[in-house]
Amino acid sequence: MEESITQKQLDLLVDHKLAINTALTADKNDALAKMADALEDASDRILAANEQDLAKAQGKISDVMLDRLRLSKDRIKGMADGIRALISLPDPVGLVLDEHETPNGLDIVKKSVPFGVIGIIYESRPNVTSDAAALALKSGNAVMLRSGKDAFNSAEAIVEALKAGLAQSRISPDCIQLAQDTSHQSSQEMMTARGKLDLLLPRGGRGLIQAIVQNATVPVIETGTGICHIYVNKDADQEKALKIIDNAKTQRPSVCNAAEVCLVDAAIAGEFLPKLDRLFKGRVEMRADQAAKKYLPDAKAAGPDDFDTEFLDYVMAIGVVKDVKEAIAHINRHSTHHSEAIITEDPAAADLFTTMIDSAAVYVNASTRFTDGGQFGMGCEFGISTQKMHARGPMGLKELTTYKYVIKGNGQTRD
Amino acid sequence: MEESITQKQLDLLVDHKLAINTALTADKNDALAKMADALEDASDRILAANEQDLAKAQGKISDVMLDRLRLSKDRIKGMADGIRALISLPDPVGLVLDEHETPNGLDIVKKSVPFGVIGIIYESRPNVTSDAAALALKSGNAVMLRSGKDAFNSAEAIVEALKAGLAQSRISPDCIQLAQDTSHQSSQEMMTARGKLDLLLPRGGRGLIQAIVQNATVPVIETGTGICHIYVNKDADQEKALKIIDNAKTQRPSVCNAAEVCLVDAAIAGEFLPKLDRLFKGRVEMRADQAAKKYLPDAKAAGPDDFDTEFLDYVMAIGVVKDVKEAIAHINRHSTHHSEAIITEDPAAADLFTTMIDSAAVYVNASTRFTDGGQFGMGCEFGISTQKMHARGPMGLKELTTYKYVIKGNGQTRD
Repeated sequence: MEESITQKQLDLLVDHKLAINTALTADKNDALAKMADALEDASDRILAANEQDLAKAQGKISDVMLDRLRLSKDRIKGMADGIRALISLPDPVGLVLDEHETPNGLDIVKKSVPFGVIGIIYESRPNVTSDAAALALKSGNAVMLRSGKDAFNSAEAIVEALKAGLAQSRISPDCIQLAQDTSHQSSQEMMTARGKLDLLLPRGGRGLIQAIVQNATVPVIETGTGICHIYVNKDADQEKALKIIDNAKTQRPSVCNAAEVCLVDAAIAGEFLPKLDRLFKGRVEMRADQAAKKYLPDAKAAGPDDFDTEFLDYVMAIGVVKDVKEAIAHINRHSTHHSEAIITEDPAAADLFTTMIDSAAVYVNASTRFTDGGQFGMGCEFGISTQKMHARGPMGLKELTTYKYVIKGNGQTRD
Repeated sequence: MEESITQKQLDLLVDHKLAINTALTADKNDALAKMADALEDASDRILAANEQDLAKAQGKISDVMLDRLRLSKDRIKGMADGIRALISLPDPVGLVLDEHETPNGLDIVKKSVPFGVIGIIYESRPNVTSDAAALALKSGNAVMLRSGKDAFNSAEAIVEALKAGLAQSRISPDCIQLAQDTSHQSSQEMMTARGKLDLLLPRGGRGLIQAIVQNATVPVIETGTGICHIYVNKDADQEKALKIIDNAKTQRPSVCNAAEVCLVDAAIAGEFLPKLDRLFKGRVEMRADQAAKKYLPDAKAAGPDDFDTEFLDYVMAIGVVKDVKEAIAHINRHSTHHSEAIITEDPAAADLFTTMIDSAAVYVNASTRFTDGGQFGMGCEFGISTQKMHARGPMGLKELTTYKYVIKGNGQTRD
């Protein structure tokens, strides 16, 4: 049976992975600089390809999606600068994570190493193509990119530019492959490429991510969905609470670390909710549970799904809870384990909350919007993991590596 | 639709997980001591249950399997001592893995936390029941144990004893569940228990592990199979090589870190292989490739699968390679990425080998038999991971934890 084009691309990556996995830091950084320059140099070609994608998509996808798909000289420069920003970050490969000598004289070193070959399946943001390729390269991984069909021409022009940059460097252009098959078949082959793909990272909406998590037999890191909560404890500084809720809900409602639910202690609901009402009036649609509705006469009554929905919009579910314990129970049941915050001046309530909440990031008196690789000091970000295995929360370069043990002896055998 | 017994057990674990996830170290250690005592106290009951299993299995499974299934007072004492050994190990939960303050005054702490609820699917070794329960407890995880059918009565008596111990402690006996449904259905439900099981660990033969890796939609860590290689470089100390090969092959051939393949540089094959022949004569069956066969006239000719087989027996595949590069290419293609060794006095060859070999443990001048949690200083072991995500190589208590970020502020919002 003849191999599919996707299998051939995966095989090519496997053939080249040793070289990129063991590449020198200086060579990787030089390659990144050349990729960034080549990307800017190819602006006209990329914009022409992007026009093709836009023309095909017109009328078929929403205006928001069209805007995500659209490139400009400025956006391409932004993508190139994103690649350049990786150059100054420390190489995550080859770090000694642990070292010890055993009583019989074995020297055991635990060292960070790249995964090998990473696969990335994403939707229609063309910038993911260059971001993902650059992060994979800096972390020493060969990479198979699988762009959404809508952005394929743009992705192809971007990858062509990146490969032109690599051709000037000591890293082989073959280390980056863009899946040429844009049918469902290529995703399916990537999801089941055991022994070829060491890690698969989906980036996109809930549907894409769930389909991959459910169907992949290669290791996957689940990213994305954030039903983030802000809980206002009875001992909150209410002005702080209003400022934080406003920021978490409205500063950028379309992202996964924006808050979707506000819970308020019953003891202060009568005082606090009218203030929230004044703050949100005409700006944020509130959907209140029965107890909250008492103090929010103009709010919509929350429907059965409103406490389990990632609105990604100027909408917030508002609920009243008895106390911090009830808040914790509600959040652990309804959250997507992304980011949650307590607003309180009571250290005991804060401790209980941070200990008991089962989420990647748990905040005291701060906005959930800070869950981000850049804000966490990683210098870059490859999505937010909402699973517990391998990486949790923001993923930077380090999360794209694994480790191995190197053991040196002088003839030791086991008794 | 009524919930199955397995779902009810999983729900019970989810209900109890917060308590065990946040239990104090002293309470967990006290519980371990009581579990160990209760296990020894229940020896007679456990042996009677084990007799039932043995009687049912007689004639249906091999003698080796029957021996694995058989318990004795001594073996039960060994299991209890295994539990007690965990008491003195450091608690892997609550460690500060990283901490930094951001320019705007947020204090970000990365802290180790338990996974939550762990599932373990295993075969017929009754000691896995107590080992797994104790490791899960020490690492703060609630646990669903799914024993092989052949060992079910033994497992049930062991879990009953462990729960009797827990009943004397501050940890709820409900934190340990033994799957009551021994049909395939309970495995299937565990593999797909998304939102309930945070991690699933298979322990057993290749068939079991592959079935779980292929079918699970919950996060899995693949363990087990070891096709381990010893490569004798032209600059090897040949006496060292013989000693190490003998140890890696024959000290305990039935385990995953035993060596299955020996590769020898062509330049020394004529000198070295006759020595290996003398060493192994009458003890180890050698299966030689064409080039090796020249110097091993009495060896069997290797068949097409002999370089891809985990013999777990006194059998070894012997091959000749041109040089270290050919050895690396062969190993990366045929190994299960478990443990491999180079025997050489040439530091350059050793460096190339340890850098290029894509396995969990890479040795220079030492036996592969050291890949083991105890030998690596972990104090205990829950199998050897052969995947790259989350844990690689021996898994101890730390590998049964994940982390979360706790962020403390005083009203910070994002610009």
